[in-house]
Amino acid sequence: MTTPISEFPFTLLADELQRVRANTPLVHVLTNEVVQCFTANTLLAVGASPAMVVAKEEVADFAAIADALLINVGTLYAERLESMNLAIAAANAAGTPWVLDPVAVGVLSYRTEAAKAMLALKPAAIRGNGSEIIALAAGMGLAQSNHVGKGVDSTASSNAALSAAQALAQATGAIVAVTGAIDYITDGEKTWSVELGHPLMTKVVGTGCALSAVVAAFVADAPNRLDAVTAACALIALAGERAVECADGPGTFVAPFLDALHIIHPNQLRQVGV
Amino acid sequence: MTTPISEFPFTLLADELQRVRANTPLVHVLTNEVVQCFTANTLLAVGASPAMVVAKEEVADFAAIADALLINVGTLYAERLESMNLAIAAANAAGTPWVLDPVAVGVLSYRTEAAKAMLALKPAAIRGNGSEIIALAAGMGLAQSNHVGKGVDSTASSNAALSAAQALAQATGAIVAVTGAIDYITDGEKTWSVELGHPLMTKVVGTGCALSAVVAAFVADAPNRLDAVTAACALIALAGERAVECADGPGTFVAPFLDALHIIHPNQLRQVGV
Amino acid sequence: MTTPISEFPFTLLADELQRVRANTPLVHVLTNEVVQCFTANTLLAVGASPAMVVAKEEVADFAAIADALLINVGTLYAERLESMNLAIAAANAAGTPWVLDPVAVGVLSYRTEAAKAMLALKPAAIRGNGSEIIALAAGMGLAQSNHVGKGVDSTASSNAALSAAQALAQATGAIVAVTGAIDYITDGEKTWSVELGHPLMTKVVGTGCALSAVVAAFVADAPNRLDAVTAACALIALAGERAVECADGPGTFVAPFLDALHIIHPNQLRQVGV
Repeated sequence: MTTPISEFPFTLLADELQRVRANTPLVHVLTNEVVQCFTANTLLAVGASPAMVVAKEEVADFAAIADALLINVGTLYAERLESMNLAIAAANAAGTPWVLDPVAVGVLSYRTEAAKAMLALKPAAIRGNGSEIIALAAGMGLAQSNHVGKGVDSTASSNAALSAAQALAQATGAIVAVTGAIDYITDGEKTWSVELGHPLMTKVVGTGCALSAVVAAFVADAPNRLDAVTAACALIALAGERAVECADGPGTFVAPFLDALHIIHPNQLRQVGV
Repeated sequence: MTTPISEFPFTLLADELQRVRANTPLVHVLTNEVVQCFTANTLLAVGASPAMVVAKEEVADFAAIADALLINVGTLYAERLESMNLAIAAANAAGTPWVLDPVAVGVLSYRTEAAKAMLALKPAAIRGNGSEIIALAAGMGLAQSNHVGKGVDSTASSNAALSAAQALAQATGAIVAVTGAIDYITDGEKTWSVELGHPLMTKVVGTGCALSAVVAAFVADAPNRLDAVTAACALIALAGERAVECADGPGTFVAPFLDALHIIHPNQLRQVGV
Repeated sequence: MTTPISEFPFTLLADELQRVRANTPLVHVLTNEVVQCFTANTLLAVGASPAMVVAKEEVADFAAIADALLINVGTLYAERLESMNLAIAAANAAGTPWVLDPVAVGVLSYRTEAAKAMLALKPAAIRGNGSEIIALAAGMGLAQSNHVGKGVDSTASSNAALSAAQALAQATGAIVAVTGAIDYITDGEKTWSVELGHPLMTKVVGTGCALSAVVAAFVADAPNRLDAVTAACALIALAGERAVECADGPGTFVAPFLDALHIIHPNQLRQVGV
């Protein structure tokens, strides 16, 4: 299967960012313990409204009133998994789109099984690294699982996971974003590639997790989910590039990264054009 | 009911800050998962000593030896609620003052009921946004709950919540701080207003939560709790103003905010005067 | 018992750092809720690969494939303690070295008992402040517990805990690092002292916890564990000194601290010499 891969136009990114800023989507975040603060700050900087609501007594009510839901299995455990499944069910009942970040899926069977079961619950989008996307696809019999991640880092390039991503999108109906040196975003038919960002971003914990949260913010009420997810990937990568220009290392990266997300104006993006 | 509202004098703030710095109060923090690191750094910068002790096996012992206790229901769940209630009971038995931050109360019934029950346990102070304070007051039949927050953000101004705050203070005996563009701090009789701070602070996660922790630090062994809570609100707002001068956005806000809290000297505040 | 205490040579630090950078050890981190993000960023900056895996269903599998395991009892509770003990058992079975950070042990009996039981499970290294090391040693009958910490801060100097550290190392076979104004690192026979670092580091939450994680990274596959732990202590202290030169306070400390860890090159350390 060949799929045209082309650069995502900045004008489309500008339109998408303008839409999110105007809507300030309420994003229900169920993510791992490590990145909660950075994820919330990233969503605020983009123009969304994050809320971490975690109790099984509350998640269903909140997923129903949220504009999008993020599920990240990074530090999964039984009680949190129960909350995630309740939140997903309520989101689906209410028509709230939800996004899956399959952190380290393929490395550990507990989360691999949990994520596999979630795939049947129709995520609007999936964002992972090469190893994770291959593992998800392999779990559905769509790929050979010849790559396994080392911890939370990928041992497969995004390019090596492209066909798995496309097959996963076709099988699940989700937009699949496999990120790495090049990000590929696909609905199984059309695939955008985004070759932006900087390797320093891999030395800052949570950039991938925060991207998944921004994917959720962009998927909220999106007229075109493929465009929305692609715009989220491009925006984070672009802010990363800007931040690297101000940074001496991973420590000084974080502050200008959040600033860039907050400051960047759709009209600036239109002037860059493509 | 009319209540005189006036500016809080900086000399009083200076005295309060000097007292906290001299005592380095040990603050037992039971807060949400998102803001723990930022809260601890804020308390350290102010001159307090934070400690997050969470197990039901430990909280009672620790609340008894702490100088103040913070309860923040942002990511409440059953086990943590049990720990909170044990900590509150032990704090009350030991005479340790405790502070309630009712994050998103009014939006979700589980935490709304939990916070309502806590109100009967005599918090020394309550710090929330307009929506949260109105929801707490409404739960006691003291206000009309015609505002509900959107997620964790307020949909009611602090001014709209002023009479609810005053009624809540009178009914509970707590100092009530309702924060927003203007902060109002009341014991139900006298009300201070603090018109400091900057809107950028709402784009940084945890500024409100960290303020509540600082309220706890100032309430510890306070000769006058209304002054203590007001000083905490003024100090955070003032540090925020200084940080905004150094910041390009929410990312670059955090570091100079913590620095300002650490560097600011009571004598500087006395020179500013009122 | 007298033990020679001498300065750790920078050339040895350079060799150790070069080794860790070459191996990029996968560090399984089971730490407290407050410092997870900072700990992960510190490990990434040093050149290690952090992964927080917490579920009892996953920890044993992961500890077995990790290169080192960190156990930090800062926000211990029953479910997490169960995961920690499963992880330790699996680490021991697989030959994965593990490191204990006994946060606030001696202050609260629940964690004191838990840490005491862990000591029998043969940690490769223990890193704590003076109060914590004395409390651990006292729990084994090796010291008088006449110092108890105030919350998470030490009330005993590292010097006052030196003999307790040496006795603890002899009794457990672990390398013991007692950190403070001077860090002492001992195997019970030989003791290195590291007089680097800066008091501002005590005003930033998690510097000690992050050091313990870096100790784990250095202990992974270490030819000489005493050298490895000493190098970890020296590296963190040295990066702290560099960061202080760029910082106005605790807020602006964090970013250059992480940058320094990332940028520092073994050859720079060799040029400094001793």
